Amino acid sequence: MKDRPNRQILLAERPAGKLDPAHFKSVETTIGEPEPGQVLVRTILLSIDPANRAWMQGRTYREQLGAGDVMAGFTLCEVVAANGSAIPEGAIVACEAGWQEYAVLRANTVRPLTVRGPLTHHMSVLGVTGLTAYFGLLNIGRPLKGETVVVSAAAGATGNVVGQIARIMGCRVVGVTGSDEKNRLLEQDLGFDATVNHRSETLRSDLAAACPNGIDIYFDNVGGRLLEACLPLMKTHGRIVCCGAVSQYDTATPVPGPAGVPGQLVVKRLRMEGFLVSDFIGEWATAEEQLSAWVAAGDLKVLEDVVEGLDSAPSALVGILAGNNTGKRIVRIAPDPTA
Amino acid sequence: MKDRPNRQILLAERPAGKLDPAHFKSVETTIGEPEPGQVLVRTILLSIDPANRAWMQGRTYREQLGAGDVMAGFTLCEVVAANGSAIPEGAIVACEAGWQEYAVLRANTVRPLTVRGPLTHHMSVLGVTGLTAYFGLLNIGRPLKGETVVVSAAAGATGNVVGQIARIMGCRVVGVTGSDEKNRLLEQDLGFDATVNHRSETLRSDLAAACPNGIDIYFDNVGGRLLEACLPLMKTHGRIVCCGAVSQYDTATPVPGPAGVPGQLVVKRLRMEGFLVSDFIGEWATAEEQLSAWVAAGDLKVLEDVVEGLDSAPSALVGILAGNNTGKRIVRIAPDPTA
Repeated sequence: MKDRPNRQILLAERPAGKLDPAHFKSVETTIGEPEPGQVLVRTILLSIDPANRAWMQGRTYREQLGAGDVMAGFTLCEVVAANGSAIPEGAIVACEAGWQEYAVLRANTVRPLTVRGPLTHHMSVLGVTGLTAYFGLLNIGRPLKGETVVVSAAAGATGNVVGQIARIMGCRVVGVTGSDEKNRLLEQDLGFDATVNHRSETLRSDLAAACPNGIDIYFDNVGGRLLEACLPLMKTHGRIVCCGAVSQYDTATPVPGPAGVPGQLVVKRLRMEGFLVSDFIGEWATAEEQLSAWVAAGDLKVLEDVVEGLDSAPSALVGILAGNNTGKRIVRIAPDPTA
Repeated sequence: MKDRPNRQILLAERPAGKLDPAHFKSVETTIGEPEPGQVLVRTILLSIDPANRAWMQGRTYREQLGAGDVMAGFTLCEVVAANGSAIPEGAIVACEAGWQEYAVLRANTVRPLTVRGPLTHHMSVLGVTGLTAYFGLLNIGRPLKGETVVVSAAAGATGNVVGQIARIMGCRVVGVTGSDEKNRLLEQDLGFDATVNHRSETLRSDLAAACPNGIDIYFDNVGGRLLEACLPLMKTHGRIVCCGAVSQYDTATPVPGPAGVPGQLVVKRLRMEGFLVSDFIGEWATAEEQLSAWVAAGDLKVLEDVVEGLDSAPSALVGILAGNNTGKRIVRIAPDPTA
């Protein structure tokens, strides 16, 4: 079979300071057939995540991205050619095809999905960000009914699910975003008890007012100054769930570490713990069941922010780093074959 | 009965920068008989702890110390008058009599001891610092055989016991102190596998060389720059036991929080957790049994640094903040009635 045309977006240059669409480059290339043990996939949905930017900064849980690399990203794809692997052609799989229309991947790195409901749900509430919210809050934060949970980037893909699960668990939920409009949405549509705008000049007193009994769990997506502001409000035996540090990804000049570490941790016997969703892979199926059930019951609303076309990906990522998304940001690369 | 003369050392002035013996003042006063529900105790041994300095900085797990207060401190005392309480006169009790020869305390705040071996052991290996080492390492750090444990202030009262228990647990033990002489003692007498001097200009590479497989547990007594230096060496799922931050107690200009928090915690799924020994009070008796058994078997050597006389207390505390003690620093106020 003839090679197929394949459009890709490359990281043209590692950003020194803020990421800009000019750091990317679109190229037209071709892609061949899979070898034995490989599959050829077509990208349907591309996930845009703040972590994409962290991958450019240095080695994380993966190698640092370099100039000329196809930009990396989580995807939902359709298997086009399976070359004898156990995965049927036409299957919908979760994988890391990156920012391109087609990819050849090792068959053992793609995860076939049982699609239920809209395909986008498998990238939002049932995808990596929904699962991150689920395991981070329940397994690391371990909320008890009546506790106060603060979540940052609360209108983001992970944050909005954290807040909603905390509400389902009977907690007082306080969301922090950078926009009064997002905060209204969280309070009016998603049942948050209170919200705080991190751009407020009275951030510390706003937080204290929203948490009159202190903070039992701070689910931290942003790090930096907001983490520092939450520390003095933490209650004895409180927990800080370290999920991300998006405030520090898109800069050449990260702020110093938070004052109060480790002093506040000792005095108040706090636990501060990082995690990756992959640590809980054996429990993903159970979590997906539970999340699906909450969605079906109307307890968990799905917040998605879908943009169209591969060429939108660079500005979609730049935008998410500025906080201009509401819910899970997804780029649709090709029509949904399950719709 | 006539009032007794009682010598006290007061905190004359809260230090702005470094603590100095001139911040204290010795006074001669008198003390009366206990009321019902109180006991009169005579101080035998006074514990000198870096935390004493933190108590002057602000509110911790206790109220901040102010000018004119009798300097606070943990003590082992003999009950002189019990005024009908259940505690027999002549009993040896652990309590907080502070820096004075006699104190009247609520009977329910003193803890009678079953003295075994030298009384000083109840202030070192069987006292608060030994128990802190025991619970911090075992219950918070949770060491596994073969893991690498780094402990700071490793020749201090808590640190030397942490290192020795880690060795008993089959870990590779790396001690950090500010003195080559202390480091020799740790390696030659206490069985540490390696040591590092935190004053070295090549601290980061020294640490890396001492931990060729990375760090599983960092038992942090000091905070500050050393904590920051350990973070990049932590292994996936490593644990940082937050016991104290002595590098930051004796200064008006604490360093910023450690770079790498929370970033390193996320990427490497680290747990960073503070604790106080009082969290485990229900398990103290069991821990004392175990620590005693290790001492009796010769597995756990007792490192003490005893100075004589109440008037030595101010310089003993100033000295401990500069790191000039080896093992548990104790001030002997009166002869041991059990000897």
